[in-house]
Amino acid sequence: MQILAGQISIPTTRCRADQLTHLHQLANRLRVACDDGVPDIIVLPELAAQEYSDDAFDCLEALDDDLGGPVVEAFTELARELGTAIAFGMARRAGSRRHISQVLVGPDGRLAGVYDKLHCAQFGASGEAAHFSPGEQLLVTEIAGWRVGVVICYDLRFPELARRLADEGVELILHPVAFTRDFSFASWHAFVTTRAMENQLYWLSLNRAGAEWGQSLFCPPLVDDDHPTLTFGTGEEWQRLTLDKAALREARRRLPLGTDRRADLDALPMWTPD
Amino acid sequence: MQILAGQISIPTTRCRADQLTHLHQLANRLRVACDDGVPDIIVLPELAAQEYSDDAFDCLEALDDDLGGPVVEAFTELARELGTAIAFGMARRAGSRRHISQVLVGPDGRLAGVYDKLHCAQFGASGEAAHFSPGEQLLVTEIAGWRVGVVICYDLRFPELARRLADEGVELILHPVAFTRDFSFASWHAFVTTRAMENQLYWLSLNRAGAEWGQSLFCPPLVDDDHPTLTFGTGEEWQRLTLDKAALREARRRLPLGTDRRADLDALPMWTPD
Repeated sequence: MQILAGQISIPTTRCRADQLTHLHQLANRLRVACDDGVPDIIVLPELAAQEYSDDAFDCLEALDDDLGGPVVEAFTELARELGTAIAFGMARRAGSRRHISQVLVGPDGRLAGVYDKLHCAQFGASGEAAHFSPGEQLLVTEIAGWRVGVVICYDLRFPELARRLADEGVELILHPVAFTRDFSFASWHAFVTTRAMENQLYWLSLNRAGAEWGQSLFCPPLVDDDHPTLTFGTGEEWQRLTLDKAALREARRRLPLGTDRRADLDALPMWTPD
Repeated sequence: MQILAGQISIPTTRCRADQLTHLHQLANRLRVACDDGVPDIIVLPELAAQEYSDDAFDCLEALDDDLGGPVVEAFTELARELGTAIAFGMARRAGSRRHISQVLVGPDGRLAGVYDKLHCAQFGASGEAAHFSPGEQLLVTEIAGWRVGVVICYDLRFPELARRLADEGVELILHPVAFTRDFSFASWHAFVTTRAMENQLYWLSLNRAGAEWGQSLFCPPLVDDDHPTLTFGTGEEWQRLTLDKAALREARRRLPLGTDRRADLDALPMWTPD
Protein backbone atom coordinates (compact mmCIF):
# COMPACT_ATOMS: atom_id res chain seq x y z
CA MET A 1 0.00 0.00 0.00
CA GLN A 2 1.22 3.49 -0.79
CA ILE A 3 0.21 6.59 1.16
CA LEU A 4 0.79 10.16 0.12
CA ALA A 5 0.91 12.05 3.42
CA GLY A 6 0.40 15.79 3.13
CA GLN A 7 1.65 17.90 6.02
CA ILE A 8 -0.06 20.93 4.48
CA SER A 9 -0.04 24.65 5.09
CA ILE A 10 -3.51 26.03 5.77
CA PRO A 11 -4.22 29.74 5.45
CA THR A 12 -6.55 31.92 7.49
CA THR A 13 -10.16 30.87 6.93
CA ARG A 14 -12.92 32.86 8.59
CA CYS A 15 -15.66 32.56 5.98
CA ARG A 16 -16.77 30.09 3.30
CA ALA A 17 -15.02 32.05 0.52
CA ASP A 18 -11.66 31.79 2.38
CA GLN A 19 -12.26 28.08 2.80
CA LEU A 20 -13.18 27.40 -0.83
CA THR A 21 -10.12 29.32 -2.00
CA HIS A 22 -8.00 27.13 0.32
CA LEU A 23 -9.60 23.95 -1.00
CA HIS A 24 -9.11 25.05 -4.61
CA GLN A 25 -5.42 25.84 -4.05
CA LEU A 26 -4.94 22.64 -2.07
CA ALA A 27 -6.47 20.61 -4.93
CA ASN A 28 -3.90 22.13 -7.30
CA ARG A 29 -1.04 21.20 -4.97
CA LEU A 30 -2.45 17.68 -4.63
CA ARG A 31 -2.55 17.28 -8.42
CA VAL A 32 1.14 18.24 -8.58
CA ALA A 33 1.98 15.90 -5.71
CA CYS A 34 0.37 13.07 -7.68
CA ASP A 35 2.41 13.79 -10.82
CA ASP A 36 4.88 11.10 -9.82
CA GLY A 37 2.16 8.50 -9.55
CA VAL A 38 -1.18 8.10 -7.83
CA PRO A 39 -1.04 6.62 -4.30
CA ASP A 40 -3.69 4.33 -2.81
CA ILE A 41 -4.66 7.07 -0.40
CA ILE A 42 -3.89 10.73 0.23
CA VAL A 43 -4.00 11.63 3.91
CA LEU A 44 -4.53 15.18 5.22
CA PRO A 45 -4.50 16.56 8.79
CA GLU A 46 -7.17 17.20 11.39
CA LEU A 47 -9.57 19.96 10.27
CA ALA A 48 -7.64 20.19 6.98
CA ALA A 49 -10.50 22.15 5.42
CA GLN A 50 -9.92 25.17 7.65
CA GLU A 51 -7.69 27.15 9.98
CA TYR A 52 -7.21 25.68 13.48
CA SER A 53 -7.55 28.46 16.06
CA ASP A 54 -10.03 29.84 18.57
CA ASP A 55 -10.68 32.72 16.16
CA ALA A 56 -11.61 30.30 13.40
CA PHE A 57 -13.70 28.24 15.83
CA ASP A 58 -15.75 31.38 16.45
CA CYS A 59 -16.61 31.30 12.71
CA LEU A 60 -17.68 27.65 12.56
CA GLU A 61 -21.20 28.59 11.42
CA ALA A 62 -19.54 29.63 8.16
CA LEU A 63 -16.94 26.86 7.93
CA ASP A 64 -18.68 23.69 8.97
CA ASP A 65 -20.45 21.41 6.55
CA ASP A 66 -22.54 18.28 6.37
CA LEU A 67 -21.67 15.31 4.18
CA GLY A 68 -23.66 16.73 1.27
CA GLY A 69 -22.04 20.15 1.16
CA PRO A 70 -19.24 21.89 -0.73
CA VAL A 71 -16.31 20.68 1.43
CA VAL A 72 -17.05 17.01 0.96
CA GLU A 73 -17.94 17.68 -2.68
CA ALA A 74 -14.52 19.26 -3.34
CA PHE A 75 -12.70 16.21 -2.01
CA THR A 76 -14.96 13.59 -3.61
CA GLU A 77 -14.55 15.23 -7.01
CA LEU A 78 -10.79 15.30 -6.54
CA ALA A 79 -10.72 11.65 -5.43
CA ARG A 80 -12.66 10.69 -8.56
CA GLU A 81 -10.46 12.84 -10.80
CA LEU A 82 -7.19 11.47 -9.41
CA GLY A 83 -8.42 7.93 -8.85
CA THR A 84 -7.27 7.70 -5.23
CA ALA A 85 -8.84 7.57 -1.78
CA ILE A 86 -8.59 10.76 0.29
CA ALA A 87 -8.82 11.13 4.08
CA PHE A 88 -9.42 14.73 5.15
CA GLY A 89 -10.43 16.58 8.28
CA MET A 90 -13.40 18.93 8.57
CA ALA A 91 -15.86 20.47 11.01
CA ARG A 92 -18.85 18.24 10.39
CA ARG A 93 -22.38 19.46 11.11
CA ALA A 94 -24.77 16.68 12.09
CA GLY A 95 -28.17 17.86 13.28
CA SER A 96 -27.65 20.25 16.19
CA ARG A 97 -24.13 18.97 16.86
CA ARG A 98 -20.77 19.74 15.34
CA HIS A 99 -17.87 17.26 15.24
CA ILE A 100 -14.15 17.26 14.50
CA SER A 101 -14.33 14.62 11.79
CA GLN A 102 -12.06 12.74 9.46
CA VAL A 103 -13.88 11.72 6.29
CA LEU A 104 -12.62 9.02 3.92
CA VAL A 105 -13.72 8.92 0.32
CA GLY A 106 -12.80 6.16 -2.10
CA PRO A 107 -11.27 6.54 -5.59
CA ASP A 108 -14.81 6.26 -6.97
CA GLY A 109 -15.82 9.30 -4.89
CA ARG A 110 -18.01 7.25 -2.58
CA LEU A 111 -17.96 7.69 1.18
CA ALA A 112 -15.61 5.08 2.69
CA GLY A 113 -15.95 6.17 6.31
CA VAL A 114 -16.56 8.95 8.80
CA TYR A 115 -14.94 9.25 12.21
CA ASP A 116 -15.89 11.93 14.73
CA LYS A 117 -13.18 12.64 17.33
CA LEU A 118 -14.14 10.85 20.56
CA HIS A 119 -12.18 13.08 22.94
CA CYS A 120 -12.46 16.82 22.33
CA ALA A 121 -9.59 18.60 24.08
CA GLN A 122 -9.86 21.47 26.51
CA PHE A 123 -6.36 22.18 27.86
CA GLY A 124 -3.25 24.09 26.84
CA ALA A 125 -3.87 25.75 23.49
CA SER A 126 -6.84 23.48 22.71
CA GLY A 127 -10.31 24.92 23.22
CA GLU A 128 -12.18 22.30 21.22
CA ALA A 129 -14.68 21.12 23.81
CA ALA A 130 -16.34 24.55 23.83
CA HIS A 131 -17.15 24.24 20.11
CA PHE A 132 -17.43 20.55 19.24
CA SER A 133 -19.30 17.48 20.48
CA PRO A 134 -17.52 14.16 21.00
CA GLY A 135 -18.22 11.33 18.57
CA GLU A 136 -20.24 8.21 19.31
CA GLN A 137 -18.83 5.69 16.83
CA LEU A 138 -15.55 4.05 15.91
CA LEU A 139 -14.32 3.62 12.37
CA VAL A 140 -12.66 0.66 10.74
CA THR A 141 -12.70 0.70 6.95
CA GLU A 142 -10.88 -0.98 4.10
CA ILE A 143 -8.54 0.87 1.74
CA ALA A 144 -6.62 -0.98 -0.98
CA GLY A 145 -6.95 -4.28 0.89
CA TRP A 146 -5.80 -2.85 4.23
CA ARG A 147 -7.83 -2.57 7.43
CA VAL A 148 -7.63 1.11 8.38
CA GLY A 149 -8.71 2.78 11.62
CA VAL A 150 -8.81 6.47 12.47
CA VAL A 151 -8.21 8.37 15.72
CA ILE A 152 -7.75 12.14 15.96
CA CYS A 153 -5.09 14.06 17.93
CA TYR A 154 -5.98 13.96 21.67
CA ASP A 155 -7.59 10.50 21.19
CA LEU A 156 -3.97 9.27 21.20
CA ARG A 157 -3.72 9.69 24.97
CA PHE A 158 -6.21 6.91 25.72
CA PRO A 159 -4.73 3.44 25.15
CA GLU A 160 -8.08 1.64 25.09
CA LEU A 161 -9.15 3.28 21.83
CA ALA A 162 -6.26 2.14 19.61
CA ARG A 163 -6.41 -1.23 21.38
CA ARG A 164 -10.03 -1.70 20.39
CA LEU A 165 -9.24 -0.87 16.78
CA ALA A 166 -6.26 -3.25 16.81
CA ASP A 167 -8.51 -5.98 18.18
CA GLU A 168 -10.73 -5.37 15.13
CA GLY A 169 -7.79 -6.30 12.91
CA VAL A 170 -6.66 -2.79 12.02
CA GLU A 171 -3.24 -2.69 10.30
CA LEU A 172 -2.89 1.06 9.84
CA ILE A 173 -4.01 3.90 12.07
CA LEU A 174 -4.48 7.30 10.48
CA HIS A 175 -3.99 9.91 13.19
CA PRO A 176 -4.64 13.41 11.84
CA VAL A 177 -3.56 15.95 14.45
CA ALA A 178 -3.25 19.65 15.22
CA PHE A 179 -0.38 19.58 17.70
CA THR A 180 0.85 23.07 18.43
CA ARG A 181 3.85 23.91 20.61
CA ASP A 182 2.13 23.85 23.99
CA PHE A 183 3.18 21.52 26.83
CA SER A 184 1.49 18.53 25.17
CA PHE A 185 3.90 18.64 22.21
CA ALA A 186 6.89 17.15 24.09
CA SER A 187 5.35 13.73 24.64
CA TRP A 188 3.45 13.36 21.36
CA HIS A 189 6.09 11.26 19.55
CA ALA A 190 6.62 8.93 22.53
CA PHE A 191 2.89 8.21 22.54
CA VAL A 192 2.81 7.52 18.80
CA THR A 193 5.78 5.15 18.97
CA THR A 194 4.20 3.31 21.89
CA ARG A 195 0.77 3.01 20.25
CA ALA A 196 2.27 1.68 17.00
CA MET A 197 4.43 -0.87 18.80
CA GLU A 198 2.03 -2.03 21.49
CA ASN A 199 -0.60 -2.70 18.83
CA GLN A 200 1.91 -3.82 16.18
CA LEU A 201 0.54 -1.76 13.33
CA TYR A 202 1.53 1.18 11.14
CA TRP A 203 0.74 4.61 12.55
CA LEU A 204 0.71 7.91 10.65
CA SER A 205 0.41 10.95 12.89
CA LEU A 206 -0.09 13.85 10.51
CA ASN A 207 0.07 17.50 11.56
CA ARG A 208 -0.45 20.74 9.65
CA ALA A 209 2.65 22.63 8.44
CA GLY A 210 4.10 25.74 10.06
CA ALA A 211 6.64 26.85 12.62
CA GLU A 212 4.12 26.23 15.42
CA TRP A 213 3.01 22.86 14.01
CA GLY A 214 4.87 20.29 11.89
CA GLN A 215 6.97 17.26 12.86
CA SER A 216 4.46 14.68 11.73
CA LEU A 217 5.54 11.14 12.55
CA PHE A 218 5.25 7.84 10.72
CA CYS A 219 5.94 4.64 12.69
CA PRO A 220 6.36 1.09 11.45
CA PRO A 221 4.88 -1.73 13.56
CA LEU A 222 8.24 -2.42 15.19
CA VAL A 223 10.48 0.56 15.84
CA ASP A 224 14.16 -0.19 16.41
CA ASP A 225 17.52 1.04 15.17
CA ASP A 226 16.99 -0.77 11.86
CA HIS A 227 13.36 0.37 11.51
CA PRO A 228 13.37 4.02 12.55
CA THR A 229 10.41 6.35 12.63
CA LEU A 230 10.12 9.03 9.94
CA THR A 231 9.85 12.57 11.26
CA PHE A 232 8.71 15.39 8.98
CA GLY A 233 10.08 18.95 9.13
CA THR A 234 7.91 21.97 9.82
CA GLY A 235 7.09 23.23 6.30
CA GLU A 236 4.58 21.88 3.81
CA GLU A 237 5.80 18.40 2.96
CA TRP A 238 4.52 15.50 0.88
CA GLN A 239 5.83 12.10 1.92
CA ARG A 240 5.25 8.87 0.06
CA LEU A 241 5.04 6.00 2.53
CA THR A 242 5.09 2.35 1.52
CA LEU A 243 3.43 -0.17 3.81
CA ASP A 244 4.19 -3.84 3.67
CA LYS A 245 2.13 -6.72 5.06
CA ALA A 246 5.28 -8.82 5.38
CA ALA A 247 6.74 -6.20 7.75
CA LEU A 248 3.59 -6.43 9.86
CA ARG A 249 3.89 -10.20 10.07
CA GLU A 250 7.61 -9.98 10.83
CA ALA A 251 7.05 -7.45 13.66
CA ARG A 252 4.46 -9.74 15.23
CA ARG A 253 6.77 -12.75 14.88
CA ARG A 254 9.81 -11.01 16.44
CA LEU A 255 7.95 -9.46 19.37
CA PRO A 256 5.12 -11.89 20.19
CA LEU A 257 2.88 -9.46 22.06
CA GLY A 258 -0.29 -11.06 20.75
CA THR A 259 0.60 -14.50 22.16
CA ASP A 260 2.16 -13.15 25.36
CA ARG A 261 -0.76 -10.88 26.26
CA ARG A 262 -2.64 -12.12 29.33
CA ALA A 263 -6.26 -12.90 28.58
CA ASP A 264 -6.87 -13.30 32.32
CA LEU A 265 -5.50 -9.90 33.36
CA ASP A 266 -8.79 -8.39 34.49
CA ALA A 267 -9.46 -11.38 36.72
CA LEU A 268 -6.09 -11.52 38.49
CA PRO A 269 -6.30 -10.99 42.25
CA MET A 270 -4.22 -8.61 44.32
CA TRP A 271 -1.40 -9.88 46.50
CA THR A 272 -2.24 -9.85 50.20
CA PRO A 273 0.01 -10.65 53.17
CA ASP A 274 -0.41 -14.22 54.50
CA MET B 1 8.54 10.75 49.35
CA GLN B 2 12.19 10.14 48.67
CA ILE B 3 13.50 7.21 46.63
CA LEU B 4 17.09 6.08 46.41
CA ALA B 5 17.30 4.38 43.01
CA GLY B 6 20.30 2.10 42.56
CA GLN B 7 21.31 1.31 39.01
CA ILE B 8 23.74 -1.28 40.32
CA SER B 9 26.55 -3.36 38.87
CA ILE B 10 26.03 -7.06 39.39
CA PRO B 11 28.94 -9.50 39.06
CA THR B 12 28.96 -13.04 37.73
CA THR B 13 26.90 -15.31 40.01
CA ARG B 14 26.77 -19.01 39.21
CA CYS B 15 26.52 -20.45 42.72
CA ARG B 16 25.18 -19.42 46.12
CA ALA B 17 28.63 -18.31 47.35
CA ASP B 18 28.97 -15.90 44.38
CA GLN B 19 25.53 -14.56 45.17
CA LEU B 20 26.12 -14.06 48.89
CA THR B 21 29.39 -12.26 48.16
CA HIS B 22 27.47 -9.98 45.77
CA LEU B 23 24.77 -9.31 48.39
CA HIS B 24 27.38 -8.59 51.06
CA GLN B 25 29.24 -6.11 48.85
CA LEU B 26 25.98 -4.55 47.70
CA ALA B 27 24.92 -4.03 51.34
CA ASN B 28 28.16 -2.14 51.96
CA ARG B 29 27.55 0.11 48.96
CA LEU B 30 23.98 0.69 50.11
CA ARG B 31 25.20 1.76 53.55
CA VAL B 32 27.49 4.31 51.91
CA ALA B 33 24.71 5.51 49.62
CA CYS B 34 22.58 6.14 52.72
CA ASP B 35 25.27 8.21 54.43
CA ASP B 36 23.62 11.40 53.19
CA GLY B 37 20.31 10.44 54.72
CA VAL B 38 17.95 7.50 54.70
CA PRO B 39 15.32 7.52 51.93
CA ASP B 40 11.78 6.18 52.28
CA ILE B 41 12.64 3.36 49.91
CA ILE B 42 15.67 1.92 48.14
CA VAL B 43 14.83 0.46 44.75
CA LEU B 44 16.98 -2.13 42.97
CA PRO B 45 16.62 -3.70 39.48
CA GLU B 46 15.02 -6.86 38.18
CA LEU B 47 16.80 -9.98 39.49
CA ALA B 48 19.14 -7.71 41.51
CA ALA B 49 20.25 -10.69 43.58
CA GLN B 50 22.02 -12.33 40.64
CA GLU B 51 23.54 -12.11 37.19
CA TYR B 52 21.08 -11.81 34.29
CA SER B 53 22.14 -14.17 31.50
CA ASP B 54 21.24 -17.53 30.02
CA ASP B 55 24.34 -18.97 31.69
CA ALA B 56 23.15 -17.78 35.09
CA PHE B 57 19.62 -19.04 34.32
CA ASP B 58 21.16 -22.49 33.88
CA CYS B 59 22.30 -22.23 37.53
CA LEU B 60 18.95 -21.19 38.99
CA GLU B 61 18.81 -24.27 41.25
CA ALA B 62 21.68 -22.64 43.16
CA LEU B 63 20.52 -19.03 42.93
CA ASP B 64 16.80 -19.07 43.55
CA ASP B 65 15.25 -18.75 46.96
CA ASP B 66 11.94 -18.79 48.75
CA LEU B 67 10.77 -15.99 51.02
CA GLY B 68 12.37 -17.64 54.07
CA GLY B 69 15.86 -18.07 52.63
CA PRO B 70 19.17 -16.20 52.70
CA VAL B 71 18.43 -13.72 49.86
CA VAL B 72 15.32 -12.28 51.49
CA GLU B 73 17.04 -12.46 54.88
CA ALA B 74 19.97 -10.33 53.65
CA PHE B 75 17.63 -7.59 52.47
CA THR B 76 15.26 -7.68 55.45
CA GLU B 77 18.19 -7.36 57.86
CA LEU B 78 19.54 -4.43 55.87
CA ALA B 79 16.10 -2.74 55.75
CA ARG B 80 15.87 -3.06 59.53
CA GLU B 81 19.43 -1.83 60.04
CA LEU B 82 19.01 1.22 57.79
CA GLY B 83 15.39 1.90 58.69
CA THR B 84 14.13 2.08 55.08
CA ALA B 85 11.98 0.02 52.76
CA ILE B 86 13.82 -1.95 50.05
CA ALA B 87 12.45 -3.26 46.75
CA PHE B 88 14.71 -5.89 45.19
CA GLY B 89 14.54 -8.45 42.42
CA MET B 90 15.16 -12.17 42.83
CA ALA B 91 14.42 -15.60 41.34
CA ARG B 92 11.69 -16.74 43.70
CA ARG B 93 10.99 -20.43 44.25
CA ALA B 94 7.36 -21.20 45.07
CA GLY B 95 6.52 -24.90 45.18
CA SER B 96 7.47 -26.40 41.82
CA ARG B 97 7.51 -23.02 40.06
CA ARG B 98 10.09 -20.29 39.80
CA HIS B 99 9.25 -16.62 39.28
CA ILE B 100 11.02 -13.39 38.37
CA SER B 101 9.92 -11.49 41.46
CA GLN B 102 10.25 -8.08 43.02
CA VAL B 103 10.02 -8.25 46.79
CA LEU B 104 9.31 -5.24 48.99
CA VAL B 105 10.28 -5.21 52.64
CA GLY B 106 9.40 -2.42 55.04
CA PRO B 107 11.75 -0.50 57.36
CA ASP B 108 10.71 -2.94 60.11
CA GLY B 109 11.95 -5.83 57.96
CA ARG B 110 8.45 -7.14 57.39
CA LEU B 111 7.25 -8.25 53.96
CA ALA B 112 5.40 -5.35 52.29
CA GLY B 113 4.65 -7.07 49.00
CA VAL B 114 5.65 -9.63 46.40
CA TYR B 115 5.11 -9.31 42.66
CA ASP B 116 5.87 -12.11 40.22
CA LYS B 117 6.43 -10.89 36.63
CA LEU B 118 3.25 -11.53 34.65
CA HIS B 119 4.84 -11.68 31.19
CA CYS B 120 8.05 -13.70 30.92
CA ALA B 121 9.90 -12.70 27.77
CA GLN B 122 11.14 -15.01 25.03
CA PHE B 123 12.53 -12.86 22.22
CA GLY B 124 15.76 -11.07 21.33
CA ALA B 125 18.27 -11.61 24.13
CA SER B 126 15.56 -12.67 26.62
CA GLY B 127 15.15 -16.37 27.27
CA GLU B 128 13.10 -16.05 30.45
CA ALA B 129 10.08 -18.11 29.50
CA ALA B 130 12.23 -21.25 29.35
CA HIS B 131 13.21 -20.85 33.02
CA PHE B 132 10.44 -18.94 34.79
CA SER B 133 6.66 -19.18 35.24
CA PRO B 134 4.44 -16.12 34.86
CA GLY B 135 2.85 -14.64 37.98
CA GLU B 136 -0.80 -14.86 38.93
CA GLN B 137 -1.27 -11.79 41.13
CA LEU B 138 -0.95 -8.02 40.96
CA LEU B 139 0.68 -5.91 43.64
CA VAL B 140 -0.42 -2.62 45.11
CA THR B 141 1.17 -1.73 48.43
CA GLU B 142 1.72 1.33 50.57
CA ILE B 143 5.15 2.86 51.19
CA ALA B 144 5.53 6.08 53.22
CA GLY B 145 1.91 7.05 52.54
CA TRP B 146 2.13 6.42 48.77
CA ARG B 147 0.23 3.83 46.74
CA VAL B 148 2.92 1.85 44.94
CA GLY B 149 2.50 -0.71 42.15
CA VAL B 150 5.13 -2.91 40.54
CA VAL B 151 5.56 -4.19 36.99
CA ILE B 152 8.72 -5.84 35.66
CA CYS B 153 10.53 -5.16 32.36
CA TYR B 154 8.53 -6.74 29.49
CA ASP B 155 5.26 -6.16 31.43
CA LEU B 156 5.67 -2.56 30.19
CA ARG B 157 4.54 -3.50 26.69
CA PHE B 158 0.97 -4.27 27.77
CA PRO B 159 -1.06 -1.12 28.49
CA GLU B 160 -3.81 -2.91 30.39
CA LEU B 161 -1.53 -3.84 33.29
CA ALA B 162 -0.41 -0.34 34.31
CA ARG B 163 -3.95 0.85 33.65
CA ARG B 164 -5.36 -1.63 36.14
CA LEU B 165 -2.86 -0.51 38.77
CA ALA B 166 -3.65 3.16 38.07
CA ASP B 167 -7.34 2.39 38.49
CA GLU B 168 -6.42 1.01 41.93
CA GLY B 169 -5.11 4.45 42.86
CA VAL B 170 -1.42 3.78 42.31
CA GLU B 171 0.72 6.95 42.36
CA LEU B 172 4.13 5.40 41.70
CA ILE B 173 5.09 2.46 39.52
CA LEU B 174 8.34 0.69 40.27
CA HIS B 175 9.54 -0.92 37.07
CA PRO B 176 12.72 -2.93 37.65
CA VAL B 177 14.14 -4.02 34.30
CA ALA B 178 16.95 -5.87 32.58
CA PHE B 179 16.99 -4.11 29.23
CA THR B 180 20.03 -5.09 27.22
CA ARG B 181 20.98 -3.62 23.86
CA ASP B 182 18.85 -5.83 21.62
CA PHE B 183 16.17 -4.44 19.28
CA SER B 184 13.76 -3.87 22.17
CA PHE B 185 16.02 -1.22 23.74
CA ALA B 186 15.20 1.52 21.20
CA SER B 187 11.56 1.90 22.20
CA TRP B 188 11.88 1.36 25.95
CA HIS B 189 11.95 5.05 26.94
CA ALA B 190 9.01 5.96 24.69
CA PHE B 191 6.94 3.28 26.41
CA VAL B 192 7.91 4.50 29.89
CA THR B 193 7.07 8.11 29.08
CA THR B 194 3.73 7.06 27.65
CA ARG B 195 2.81 4.83 30.57
CA ALA B 196 3.66 7.53 33.12
CA MET B 197 1.69 10.18 31.27
CA GLU B 198 -1.34 8.16 30.20
CA ASN B 199 -1.81 7.02 33.80
CA GLN B 200 -0.62 10.30 35.34
CA LEU B 201 1.72 8.81 37.90
CA TYR B 202 5.44 8.63 38.68
CA TRP B 203 7.33 5.86 36.93
CA LEU B 204 10.81 4.59 37.81
CA SER B 205 12.24 2.21 35.22
CA LEU B 206 15.42 0.88 36.80
CA ASN B 207 18.03 -1.15 34.92
CA ARG B 208 21.28 -2.78 36.03
CA ALA B 209 24.54 -0.92 35.30
CA GLY B 210 26.98 -1.77 32.53
CA ALA B 211 27.83 -0.88 28.95
CA GLU B 212 25.16 -3.31 27.71
CA TRP B 213 22.57 -2.13 30.23
CA GLY B 214 22.07 1.25 31.93
CA GLN B 215 20.02 4.31 30.94
CA SER B 216 17.39 3.87 33.63
CA LEU B 217 14.57 6.39 33.32
CA PHE B 218 12.51 8.31 35.85
CA CYS B 219 9.34 10.06 34.62
CA PRO B 220 7.12 12.55 36.41
CA PRO B 221 3.35 12.28 35.88
CA LEU B 222 3.44 14.99 33.21
CA VAL B 223 6.48 15.11 30.97
CA ASP B 224 7.07 18.37 29.11
CA ASP B 225 9.93 20.80 28.49
CA ASP B 226 9.61 22.12 32.05
CA HIS B 227 9.27 18.64 33.60
CA PRO B 228 11.83 16.50 31.79
CA THR B 229 12.53 12.84 32.39
CA LEU B 230 15.74 11.89 34.22
CA THR B 231 17.98 9.49 32.29
CA PHE B 232 20.79 7.65 34.08
CA GLY B 233 24.17 6.88 32.50
CA THR B 234 25.51 3.37 32.07
CA GLY B 235 27.70 2.91 35.18
CA GLU B 236 26.64 2.18 38.73
CA GLU B 237 24.62 5.19 39.82
CA TRP B 238 22.61 6.17 42.89
CA GLN B 239 19.90 8.75 42.27
CA ARG B 240 17.81 10.42 44.93
CA LEU B 241 14.34 11.12 43.55
CA THR B 242 11.82 13.32 45.31
CA LEU B 243 8.14 12.69 44.63
CA ASP B 244 5.49 15.25 45.33
CA LYS B 245 1.74 14.71 45.67
CA ALA B 246 1.11 18.31 44.60
CA ALA B 247 2.85 17.55 41.28
CA LEU B 248 0.55 14.58 40.81
CA ARG B 249 -2.51 16.74 41.41
CA GLU B 250 -1.18 19.47 39.13
CA ALA B 251 -0.51 16.99 36.29
CA ARG B 252 -4.07 15.69 36.55
CA ARG B 253 -5.46 19.21 36.62
CA ARG B 254 -3.50 20.42 33.59
CA LEU B 255 -4.19 17.38 31.42
CA PRO B 256 -7.63 16.12 32.48
CA LEU B 257 -7.31 12.56 31.19
CA GLY B 258 -9.32 11.13 34.04
CA THR B 259 -12.38 13.29 33.29
CA ASP B 260 -12.00 13.07 29.51
CA ARG B 261 -11.66 9.28 29.38
CA ARG B 262 -14.71 7.64 27.78
CA ALA B 263 -16.44 5.26 30.16
CA ASP B 264 -18.57 4.04 27.24
CA LEU B 265 -15.68 3.15 24.93
CA ASP B 266 -16.21 -0.61 24.93
CA ALA B 267 -19.85 -0.16 24.00
CA LEU B 268 -19.40 2.26 21.09
CA PRO B 269 -20.62 0.89 17.76
CA MET B 270 -18.73 0.85 14.50
CA TRP B 271 -19.58 3.27 11.71
CA THR B 272 -21.44 1.68 8.84
CA PRO B 273 -22.47 3.22 5.49
CA ASP B 274 -26.11 4.40 5.38
